[in-house]
Amino acid sequence: MMQPPRVQAGNLRIVGLGPGDAGWLTPEASAVLANATDLVGYAPYLDRIPHQHGQVRHASDNRVELERARHALRLAEDARQVAVVSGGDPGVFAMAAAVFEAIEGGDPAWREIDIAVCPGVSAMQAAAARIGAPLGHDFCAISLSDNRKPWSLVEQRLTAAAIGDFVIALYNPASKARPHQIHDAFALLRQRKAGATPVIFARAVGRPDEKIIVTTLRSAEPSLADMSTLVIIGSSETRMIERAGARPFVYTPRGAGASP
Amino acid sequence: MMQPPRVQAGNLRIVGLGPGDAGWLTPEASAVLANATDLVGYAPYLDRIPHQHGQVRHASDNRVELERARHALRLAEDARQVAVVSGGDPGVFAMAAAVFEAIEGGDPAWREIDIAVCPGVSAMQAAAARIGAPLGHDFCAISLSDNRKPWSLVEQRLTAAAIGDFVIALYNPASKARPHQIHDAFALLRQRKAGATPVIFARAVGRPDEKIIVTTLRSAEPSLADMSTLVIIGSSETRMIERAGARPFVYTPRGAGASP
Repeated sequence: MMQPPRVQAGNLRIVGLGPGDAGWLTPEASAVLANATDLVGYAPYLDRIPHQHGQVRHASDNRVELERARHALRLAEDARQVAVVSGGDPGVFAMAAAVFEAIEGGDPAWREIDIAVCPGVSAMQAAAARIGAPLGHDFCAISLSDNRKPWSLVEQRLTAAAIGDFVIALYNPASKARPHQIHDAFALLRQRKAGATPVIFARAVGRPDEKIIVTTLRSAEPSLADMSTLVIIGSSETRMIERAGARPFVYTPRGAGASP
Repeated sequence: MMQPPRVQAGNLRIVGLGPGDAGWLTPEASAVLANATDLVGYAPYLDRIPHQHGQVRHASDNRVELERARHALRLAEDARQVAVVSGGDPGVFAMAAAVFEAIEGGDPAWREIDIAVCPGVSAMQAAAARIGAPLGHDFCAISLSDNRKPWSLVEQRLTAAAIGDFVIALYNPASKARPHQIHDAFALLRQRKAGATPVIFARAVGRPDEKIIVTTLRSAEPSLADMSTLVIIGSSETRMIERAGARPFVYTPRGAGASP
């Protein structure tokens, strides 16, 4: 009996490019990008990957994550080696969730595709590294975007984060469509956290236009934040170390209520 | 007038090795490790770094982070090129906070040392990548260790995390000295979160003895967690995708209260 021709199976990798600096792109991610037949992603992320002969690029606009995910799954089904690319870590406010959402709602055969996530350095980690160790103890990460959740849930989470005295990392703090939300978030946090709490605005970390501002909750100007900014707001334990002629360090001690 | 002899200045880099798999060690971290004159760290982390002729290793025991940090700062002051190594991301429940704590409390001259943090993939990101995208939306990270903070603060943060309906990543869930705390944490969370909430125990991710268990809050056996385990507990939105003959995927959608 004739065996059917052996077909090379497709696969799908969801790859984190890190925040921009090539020194933060993991070897695993580099290898996947080099071996993929197809790259799928938001155009500015694809632009960060060197062109390679024979590799097909599927660039898409922002805000079409679910359609992009379905396209990638169909390519993998079609025996392509597909890399879906994401900035930072694809598992943190990025493409991985969109791919699994597409799988759950899509063709049951998609559940059998060879699929894996390649983690990366996320924006909050790069921002923290530049300034010291503000995420050195208990923290939370909140997206301020209300594209896909009610603003009341954002408020509930900001309030809970303040009650829990977490360090807070804010993703997607503002966009042209919703410039006021970062102001609302700061107003809420100012009612519940001390004015001296350290605040960091970290814009485009790891890219040529990187800009980092260290301030306090009292003095922070929320409109400094745009879509390329990661904002970190300290806990009651977060400390600033002043330095002569240099930006202060900011860190959160490994414990609380205990002396070093 | 004679110039004083030019002295090569020392520096200090706080380097994240990632969770264990060499594919997750960033090029930046590799370069720093290759160029350091001195490696400082907890012995099992140093054991993961290839030996290099002429490089001095300063291995220390666990739980002496502050003394280790001071030793590294003295070496850098002495014109050495020092790499303090940490598992995962040094900025997340690891050595970076200890170094900045040592700087704040130490010799004012230490504030002028050339110092930088090299971020890495943290345990929660590696665990999440293995299972899907459980950290795909708002989450928090809490260390259960009460070595350096009162247990009442751990309870306050777990409660706030439940009220905020965050996905929760638990670091340092248990040790021989405190086997009961993970039980207390689960008891608290079971009072406030649905029994069907997905729970992941991810042990030694990226290492040869990696083991991952997916269960629910109702069925979870807290004693599965040891010091090498990262525990993730979903939000009310976190979903499991069942697969025939394979571990389910777990992911948290990019929004809440919105249909895909």
